[in-house]
Amino acid sequence: MTPPLVSGRLPLRPELSGTAPYGAPQLDVPVLLNVNENPYPPAPGVVDTITEAVRSAATGLNRYPDRDFLALRSDLAAYLGTESGVSLAPEQVWAANGSNEVMLHLLQAFGGPGRTAVSFAPTYSMYPEYARDTHTRWVVGRRADDFTLDPDHARAVIARERPSVVLLASPNNPTGTALPAATVEAVCEAALGADVDGTGAPAVVVVDEAYGEFRRAGTPSALELLDRYPNLAVSRTMSKAFALAGARVGYLAASRELVDALRVVRLPYHLSAVTQAVARAALAHSTELLAQVDTLRAERDATVAWLRGRHLPDGRPLEVAASDANFVLFGRFDERHALWQGLLDRGVLIRETGPDGWLRVSIGTGKEMTAFKDALVEVAGL
Amino acid sequence: MTPPLVSGRLPLRPELSGTAPYGAPQLDVPVLLNVNENPYPPAPGVVDTITEAVRSAATGLNRYPDRDFLALRSDLAAYLGTESGVSLAPEQVWAANGSNEVMLHLLQAFGGPGRTAVSFAPTYSMYPEYARDTHTRWVVGRRADDFTLDPDHARAVIARERPSVVLLASPNNPTGTALPAATVEAVCEAALGADVDGTGAPAVVVVDEAYGEFRRAGTPSALELLDRYPNLAVSRTMSKAFALAGARVGYLAASRELVDALRVVRLPYHLSAVTQAVARAALAHSTELLAQVDTLRAERDATVAWLRGRHLPDGRPLEVAASDANFVLFGRFDERHALWQGLLDRGVLIRETGPDGWLRVSIGTGKEMTAFKDALVEVAGL
Repeated sequence: MTPPLVSGRLPLRPELSGTAPYGAPQLDVPVLLNVNENPYPPAPGVVDTITEAVRSAATGLNRYPDRDFLALRSDLAAYLGTESGVSLAPEQVWAANGSNEVMLHLLQAFGGPGRTAVSFAPTYSMYPEYARDTHTRWVVGRRADDFTLDPDHARAVIARERPSVVLLASPNNPTGTALPAATVEAVCEAALGADVDGTGAPAVVVVDEAYGEFRRAGTPSALELLDRYPNLAVSRTMSKAFALAGARVGYLAASRELVDALRVVRLPYHLSAVTQAVARAALAHSTELLAQVDTLRAERDATVAWLRGRHLPDGRPLEVAASDANFVLFGRFDERHALWQGLLDRGVLIRETGPDGWLRVSIGTGKEMTAFKDALVEVAGL
Repeated sequence: MTPPLVSGRLPLRPELSGTAPYGAPQLDVPVLLNVNENPYPPAPGVVDTITEAVRSAATGLNRYPDRDFLALRSDLAAYLGTESGVSLAPEQVWAANGSNEVMLHLLQAFGGPGRTAVSFAPTYSMYPEYARDTHTRWVVGRRADDFTLDPDHARAVIARERPSVVLLASPNNPTGTALPAATVEAVCEAALGADVDGTGAPAVVVVDEAYGEFRRAGTPSALELLDRYPNLAVSRTMSKAFALAGARVGYLAASRELVDALRVVRLPYHLSAVTQAVARAALAHSTELLAQVDTLRAERDATVAWLRGRHLPDGRPLEVAASDANFVLFGRFDERHALWQGLLDRGVLIRETGPDGWLRVSIGTGKEMTAFKDALVEVAGL
């Protein structure tokens, strides 16, 4: 697993020296519950629509793609309108090869040398890599013991660090925690006073809703705040709810001027004609694809309930984080690596991530969750 | 056409303020000869192979793609072996969403704040954008009046600037000029002494062979030098010879250690399962796709010969750069913008780029080149 390192025969940047490429192990195992994929492959009808869309696009592949992909942005705006009840213009939407690249664009436009990005740990482990790749100073505040975010703490960190970018994951990865609207509002208000570089400019607040469609009833989307904050961006992905991780389509909604800033830093033609066609084909099936989200939410709630009823051999109950996502963080184990390995030995791959002693399991099919529970009972002696 | 600018209400980086997104105008015109696309759409058999490959990939799109895409890298290595006679291991090949992203990876790994990238103008207008996006200092030396590169000048610039990255386009865009092997060798040797950051590390030399397949008989590929220089990278693209601009697949070949450095800075899963499938499908048709390259080379040589026989109304002959690419740079015009506009008014879109007074035309079909020549005779009064 350990990748080869790069020797001194090349001028690798010093901060990258000895660094391994980011990513969870890609192992060939029967039950894959490690990277929060959707367990349901695209249905035959979806595959057909994708195939025909690509056939059509393929006849013109000698030409560069539409650089501004307004048709896709229009479809994404329409989808967000249906999903969240928020009306958006196509020019308020941006997309790239995965949320990864959307985040890179954000930090290229608004971060960089001499600037600071802030988030609150524990949170998504790619965030510091985006900061590193853009030479942005990286500062983490903290979440409370229950993984919620205290607005007063957030305000204090923003006032102290004067960041140009604040990253909030909601639902948060790897904890599953969604932020109340009041917390996002408090952060947006504090960001307005960041006075970046003494220019009076606010910090950009990015609410990463990669798992937004899995939120429980009553949990709001930060999309509802967009008309009040020109410095707010809400990112989403087609990887999770749309079961399209292999297609690499992330996107965001924000003010037009924020999106226009991303247009300046994007590489020209960054989104291929094929990717645009695949994404639009899947969006045409959003109703049926999102029906599976309900199934996964129910399975998630059942998994949380089941875990909460279990006890370790020493009598301690399992701790289980509340989840608005398609995964559950649970603990605490004295030897989480041994437990992770024990599950893997039984054909169940989960993720060794989050605070020490915790593990994260993605929500799979009912059959996969049964395999997970059976293996966990055996390995942890529940 | 002028894109909207971003106002001071957001913390846009100062060096991006007032900047327009990069890219040539995307206009709906009968004869498109402006962005060096291949005029031949994929043949029905190629479209069928692509379609079936994507159908197969689509059934598993709920899963993330192979992060290291070794099957594609293996196919690319095999192709380069056939095309250039150079034997390469899959681990010596890297790919990304267009050469753009390959170049970004190179400058992320080896450029950055405090470091310098060097090239020689006139050359590809995206290079300074890669440097800007990675906060790399950008220095340009010069090409001679005939657009060749004097090795002594290149050595002197490298000795003076101590760059960590040297970018050489061969064939060069927008001039079409290929570099002799001796020039690339001289640059690689000078790069070995760059002593980056006082660490003794050499500069990385990137030979951008985006148009490599169009080179004339007897023109070498820098791939032949790879076994001698661990600091050499040779980039290619599927956009041009493979007529796959819409699929966004760029790649490079280099030493294993150089490729491993790129693995550290790539965003995880940067290459979608669909992109991998499309690229592999096209590579399976490389023989027939490259047959069209011969047609385009013949059309290019005929276009150069035709242009060289023309004179401006004042009796001056047209100047026409020697070309190893699928485009031709020609001049000199006192009012190149008026000439560009005149061609556009007649339905022929070419590119206003290169040194003052010159224009660039991509090589299209025979019919398209006739339209170009007819319009040029009329507008320029040849």
